[in-house]
Amino acid sequence: MRDRPGLIHDTVAAIRPLDASAVAAAVARQDNLTKPRGSLGVLEDVSIQLAGLAGQCPPPLPEPAAVAVFAADHGVHAQGVTPWPQEVTAQMVANFLSGGAVINAIARQVGAEVVVVDVGVDAELDAVPGLLPRKIRRGTRDMTVEAAMTRAETVAAIEVGIDLARDLVVAGNRCLLSGDMGIANTTASAALIAVFTGASVAQVTGRGTGIDDAMLAHKVEVIEAALHRHRPTAADPVGALAAVGGLEHAALVGFLLGAAALRTPVILDGVIAAAAAVVATALAPESTAAMIAGHRSSEPGATHALAHLGLRPLVDLDLRLGEGSGAALSLGLVQSAARILREVATFDSAGVTDKITHSGGA
Amino acid sequence: MRDRPGLIHDTVAAIRPLDASAVAAAVARQDNLTKPRGSLGVLEDVSIQLAGLAGQCPPPLPEPAAVAVFAADHGVHAQGVTPWPQEVTAQMVANFLSGGAVINAIARQVGAEVVVVDVGVDAELDAVPGLLPRKIRRGTRDMTVEAAMTRAETVAAIEVGIDLARDLVVAGNRCLLSGDMGIANTTASAALIAVFTGASVAQVTGRGTGIDDAMLAHKVEVIEAALHRHRPTAADPVGALAAVGGLEHAALVGFLLGAAALRTPVILDGVIAAAAAVVATALAPESTAAMIAGHRSSEPGATHALAHLGLRPLVDLDLRLGEGSGAALSLGLVQSAARILREVATFDSAGVTDKITHSGGA
Repeated sequence: MRDRPGLIHDTVAAIRPLDASAVAAAVARQDNLTKPRGSLGVLEDVSIQLAGLAGQCPPPLPEPAAVAVFAADHGVHAQGVTPWPQEVTAQMVANFLSGGAVINAIARQVGAEVVVVDVGVDAELDAVPGLLPRKIRRGTRDMTVEAAMTRAETVAAIEVGIDLARDLVVAGNRCLLSGDMGIANTTASAALIAVFTGASVAQVTGRGTGIDDAMLAHKVEVIEAALHRHRPTAADPVGALAAVGGLEHAALVGFLLGAAALRTPVILDGVIAAAAAVVATALAPESTAAMIAGHRSSEPGATHALAHLGLRPLVDLDLRLGEGSGAALSLGLVQSAARILREVATFDSAGVTDKITHSGGA
Repeated sequence: MRDRPGLIHDTVAAIRPLDASAVAAAVARQDNLTKPRGSLGVLEDVSIQLAGLAGQCPPPLPEPAAVAVFAADHGVHAQGVTPWPQEVTAQMVANFLSGGAVINAIARQVGAEVVVVDVGVDAELDAVPGLLPRKIRRGTRDMTVEAAMTRAETVAAIEVGIDLARDLVVAGNRCLLSGDMGIANTTASAALIAVFTGASVAQVTGRGTGIDDAMLAHKVEVIEAALHRHRPTAADPVGALAAVGGLEHAALVGFLLGAAALRTPVILDGVIAAAAAVVATALAPESTAAMIAGHRSSEPGATHALAHLGLRPLVDLDLRLGEGSGAALSLGLVQSAARILREVATFDSAGVTDKITHSGGA
């Protein structure tokens, strides 16, 4: 485990809000493109955000893009919060690496690279191309018995994410996507979202990939017991992550902070990413400037977290898979938003009559 | 104008429902892919539809893809239903052909071809590469004064669409997308949707690209006057199209029927396509088997029409542009749905433990 005091602090300190002049230029440019004003809805907002993040209008195309799938296991699995055996985490990592998972298929379709990060899988994984060995420990501890991680482990996992964001940007990527794999990780997500949004555990706890009523009720009790034991608060984000988070959540927090510090757009996948995002914004409120909500997971905590973050999801198709699937599905929408601001003709340049008097009509 | 009695009849007669055995195979295959059952939500439904349409599981990838932008003018423009001057239709056609419009930018991003069809622009357009000259007449007549088209003109415009669907499939396209351009065409769309869904004119008439309250009230009155004059009914779809439709609506009806007859998926754009789709299903109820709703336009008639068709839109981002923009934005989602069914490993093949006992949880 590395010990680099200051990396998180320095990263947070580097995060700035959107560039106001680039935002203003993007707003003005959208209004001069050959289309009725406002007719591209949310895509206009995304294009303006991308310009403000890049500090230039039009913004660069957010490509190439890479999906980072952070994989880890969870001690709370022992409490029976999911019917899936824990070894599925390692099995799915192997599936990602052989290109056979859903995220691989979507990434091939949208032209994104997939990077798999072992930040805490409870198994010894073979060294294979495409797998980044960044294991902090073999799974978290059971949050109902003790803190899931020590503070040092949590910091180290956050640093894994910061480092990976930097490495991917240095390698030329101009858009990062969050992915995750970890049996039982919707339990840790719900705990974090309850702590950081103030919603009740019952409100933010969902069926994960489809548990029944009895297991859902038990899952709520398990989370409530953990929160009762540790009393985590949003005032100590690293402490809350350590108490009830996951290693992949901590790494994702770092990934989001790293992307924001490098002014690189980062597309959030589902509830795991949303949980990490509420922690990241507790550490650095301006980090939302870099975040785009790829989709709305059917997990209820995702909706609470996105509302807390003020983010509107781009895709809303009842997905509840994870892996980065919802983020990757939205990549083409994000890239189209930037391309429109870059490439569409203005009324003057195209010789199209502008109905300048008011707001449109066709 | 061509006269080919029987083309519409023959096309309608060739349309069949989804292939039941391919649908069953796709449902079973989705349940064996390495993911929790049902976790891909609407994408699973799309993949199953594509398999049933192709009659094989997994279905072929829906690519390459082509967007057909049908352009035409509207005599009802004289009634003041939009603040945009009519010449913008021809100006935007030139913009499409020079690659400067929003649909061009999105099509470049998603890898689709753009074909522009002059089915009734009220201007003499220069012959340039990429423009298909299929003008039936220079704009429709004013529906408040007389029928917008003769029956023969309507049939000819439908045939333009049937022919183009065939030509694009013969050229190798495996996914078709609807596009449209025509100042005042949301007026004809609302009229058609009112006739075919039974909703009131006020319910289905919207602000187009952004008209004010007074112009909206006037637009409703104009449409009500036209419907009062002609009394079109869903029992005579061609007659209703002739009375209050547009040349691009008629061509789109043919395009949708042609795609369905050729068992090629066709992605609907916004309210113009939705209006054409309700007419197409009045002629051939099984034609919905080929239709995918690309997005939900913010125009209220689109939502009424999609509900009537039983289609759930893939993208819902407050777009109200037309041109095929919403269809093109969804293309990557449709292609991802097919690719997942084709390429994702099964539990057995990937050595992943299946939680077979019930419905999931992670």
